Amino acid sequence: MNFPSKLIEDAVTEISRLPGIGKKTALRLALHLLKQNEAVTEALALAITRMRKEISYCQTCHNISDQEVCSICQSHRRDRSIICVVEDIRDVLAIENTNQFSGLYHVLGGVISPIQGIGPDDLKIESLIFRIGTGEAKEVILALSATMEGDTTSFYLSKRLKDSGVKVSTIARGIPVGGELEFTDEVTLGRSILTRINYSQD
Amino acid sequence: MNFPSKLIEDAVTEISRLPGIGKKTALRLALHLLKQNEAVTEALALAITRMRKEISYCQTCHNISDQEVCSICQSHRRDRSIICVVEDIRDVLAIENTNQFSGLYHVLGGVISPIQGIGPDDLKIESLIFRIGTGEAKEVILALSATMEGDTTSFYLSKRLKDSGVKVSTIARGIPVGGELEFTDEVTLGRSILTRINYSQD
Repeated sequence: MNFPSKLIEDAVTEISRLPGIGKKTALRLALHLLKQNEAVTEALALAITRMRKEISYCQTCHNISDQEVCSICQSHRRDRSIICVVEDIRDVLAIENTNQFSGLYHVLGGVISPIQGIGPDDLKIESLIFRIGTGEAKEVILALSATMEGDTTSFYLSKRLKDSGVKVSTIARGIPVGGELEFTDEVTLGRSILTRINYSQD
Repeated sequence: MNFPSKLIEDAVTEISRLPGIGKKTALRLALHLLKQNEAVTEALALAITRMRKEISYCQTCHNISDQEVCSICQSHRRDRSIICVVEDIRDVLAIENTNQFSGLYHVLGGVISPIQGIGPDDLKIESLIFRIGTGEAKEVILALSATMEGDTTSFYLSKRLKDSGVKVSTIARGIPVGGELEFTDEVTLGRSILTRINYSQD
């Protein structure tokens, strides 16, 4: 595209660096901002700059937090014997929304991915080991994505935690609630049979 | 969503004001920015703020331009007898990409839309009338969207230009090149028969 203005070209270039936003969408967003009040653009620019500069992370669980220790780690209502290991803050939000978990979290900041050059040292794994060695945790739930990278990370963590004395579990993989059997892929269906739940034993 | 940080909540709120971006996508974009170098966020913030503050428009055609008169209006290679009327800069870019038009443009800045409260006075219509009254234009091509609003604007403009002495035309509506007849909607197909092109007369 040949832009008639360097200013709009720069804005489109910068906006299209965002994931999932191409040049056309970037131009649409730029034109939208041009039509709005100047305050809208300023508020957006300020919000993202402040967020990037001033954001801090919980010293314990590495979740995003405005304080040194996040509200979940501070809360007296949470069960300190269970730590749920997740990839990033989105997973924390998703699990919190289920209202099914009252333990603590540990945010790894990613998963092991050789292709993207992310190894165990790039993640908050040592701090998890340290936390388990010194804390009150009795169980660690690995709540990572059911992808190759997620499974690799789960496997690595379960090996690292084997001798720590805590119970290590992973969230169940199976057919989604509301999902029909005939439309479920073979791997998921096979796994759901292998890891079936015994009604009679609870 | 209950965000653990006011900073990220503000950023998500501001990003999700953009058209087509909901809270979930906004959070994904915010987390992406957090993982990038600080310079990436600063460049984005600066580019959109500068664009909004410093952008200027061509005095003649109202297209976005860094100069008082845009490069198209300045060019000696363009045919000054034809003016193509479009809604916004995206349409200028799209038509320029076809390499089929060598005349000048006139950017209205929108279309007449009573629902959105946009009337003829909100668009650059008077300046188009003035431009035609004083310039070298012999033909005006109305290249507006084939929507209710676009058609209303075309109809309004054709009435306003009736006594100006210039030829007024509109871009053809019909089945798209590569489109199959059976999948074309009835209105388009009907219109394409009514406005058929006579091969024998050229």
